[in-house]
Amino acid sequence: MAASAAGASPVAPSQRTTIGVDLGGTKMTAGRVSADGRILEQRTVQRPQDPSAMADAPIALASQLMADDVAAVGLGVAGFVTDEGLLVWGPNVVGENVPYRDLMWERFGLPVTVDNDANFAALGEARMGAARGYRHSIMITLGTGIGGGIIIDGRVFRGSGFAGEIGHIIVDVGGPQCTCGQRGCWETFASGRRLDQLARDIAAREPEGRVGQLAGGAIPDGTHLTEAAIAGDKSAIAAIREMADWLGIGIANLVVTLAPEVIVIGGGVSRAGDILLDPARVAATAHIEGAAHRPETPIVGATLGANAGLIGAAIAAKETIDE
Amino acid sequence: MAASAAGASPVAPSQRTTIGVDLGGTKMTAGRVSADGRILEQRTVQRPQDPSAMADAPIALASQLMADDVAAVGLGVAGFVTDEGLLVWGPNVVGENVPYRDLMWERFGLPVTVDNDANFAALGEARMGAARGYRHSIMITLGTGIGGGIIIDGRVFRGSGFAGEIGHIIVDVGGPQCTCGQRGCWETFASGRRLDQLARDIAAREPEGRVGQLAGGAIPDGTHLTEAAIAGDKSAIAAIREMADWLGIGIANLVVTLAPEVIVIGGGVSRAGDILLDPARVAATAHIEGAAHRPETPIVGATLGANAGLIGAAIAAKETIDE
Repeated sequence: MAASAAGASPVAPSQRTTIGVDLGGTKMTAGRVSADGRILEQRTVQRPQDPSAMADAPIALASQLMADDVAAVGLGVAGFVTDEGLLVWGPNVVGENVPYRDLMWERFGLPVTVDNDANFAALGEARMGAARGYRHSIMITLGTGIGGGIIIDGRVFRGSGFAGEIGHIIVDVGGPQCTCGQRGCWETFASGRRLDQLARDIAAREPEGRVGQLAGGAIPDGTHLTEAAIAGDKSAIAAIREMADWLGIGIANLVVTLAPEVIVIGGGVSRAGDILLDPARVAATAHIEGAAHRPETPIVGATLGANAGLIGAAIAAKETIDE
Repeated sequence: MAASAAGASPVAPSQRTTIGVDLGGTKMTAGRVSADGRILEQRTVQRPQDPSAMADAPIALASQLMADDVAAVGLGVAGFVTDEGLLVWGPNVVGENVPYRDLMWERFGLPVTVDNDANFAALGEARMGAARGYRHSIMITLGTGIGGGIIIDGRVFRGSGFAGEIGHIIVDVGGPQCTCGQRGCWETFASGRRLDQLARDIAAREPEGRVGQLAGGAIPDGTHLTEAAIAGDKSAIAAIREMADWLGIGIANLVVTLAPEVIVIGGGVSRAGDILLDPARVAATAHIEGAAHRPETPIVGATLGANAGLIGAAIAAKETIDE
């Protein structure tokens, strides 16, 4: 298994596929993706909680999808990833200093590219989704925490290494404790973890309410709250609006700083759709300095949905071998 | 007076000069600058308070420095400036929709480049100052408010137009009212305006104290507070440290978002030097998510001092005719 295996592939370039893996704070999903960005086959599992299982887990998942036409592999991880494909650390992942690129290369003998999961989601949306055709975009992934990917001139912007960690912009000094150790980070107010908490709060306040009913005896979480909101439950809608206000404040901070041409919202929490996005747009406009004097920044839902990270990882893998 | 006047100049390129003008929230300064970035002649005046005088003021100042060897003019303004050199609006300037580039071109018949003042300061520091040799830098100008200039791959990053308005990142939702209309913007906690307020507070609390003494009967401002702090006055030092804490929080927000290779601090407030920068470095590190896992971001004082904006404007003018 040589590093040049892809070049020696008997499969024609247009028929080659790549595998994209997205290792988030809660779930892990992998797909075999065609050269034109379609998912041909996909597996999704819960992320292991045991740190000792973390290094192998995405490799094992990718190996389930391995096929003769696979030419490269991309892995997105919710954390700090170096240019060498080393996961250094992440506030929402278990595992430090995991050399994912080397491990995957040893296993598959194919070109491997590893990056932050939100960077790959941003790349996916920029190439095939809601940010297609824009030069400068920001992807906000509302998952367990808030991930961010910044696209400048069509490429992921990393700065000195770990740019785009927008969930840890401090919006309320002295605010709630964040998993990163700081207080008042944006993601403590607007993320899947926060939505889970709001779901539990509602269920405790309204034991006979919709959110609790949907949980069916289990501890309610953000998915139940979102489902209840979509079904019209007032308490659930109010909770989503509260989150939307905070989402808008963070978006305003990104707009004044970077003036992106478009902002794309993805991740599991974004399943609420316009119940979340409409009030978030209003809140963002209300908090942007000089909004009336600026070009409007479209705030749109991710069109690749929960698969943006997976597809972005597969596209990045493809771009690596195309270069 | 044709637009091609510079090209037809009888002066050899290496002998040509450019004029840089920096129109800030309080003062206005202009300089004739050599091709290698030295200020040959400079004028500084208070900015007019009368809106009707604002359009002509920087032009009148530049005309005082006009000479045969001047090949182009650059003007930095504290506000939103379009690619066409139109000042749209600014929270700390008076005057809206002023077509500065056209006005200056009509007056001088030379190439004119107009941009946000902090963008030019960032360019000045990147070419000739503390950010020289770095690809990605952020300049923070602590003037009346907080200005920002973002350099990516050696060029000013404008996004869709008005990127770098970092003074209006909201760090404390519901915090003090900002001149931009929002609440809790970073610049309400760390800027010349805030330092002026702290100076007045100290003088009111300590009528016989150093800050009041230095003001000599006038209303004390940030310059008196800074002077008192440099002389060792404890109350003044405590006030600077309070501001440094807020400065550090905002710097942390920029580091997690953009991971610049260096952050340069300039503007009048930065005259306090390490009395301000040392505690700001400590506060920034304390508020950066995963600081221990990241490359350290140097936080350094501007080496061009209060003239960074002027020199940057002159350099931008020079680069315009060199292109």
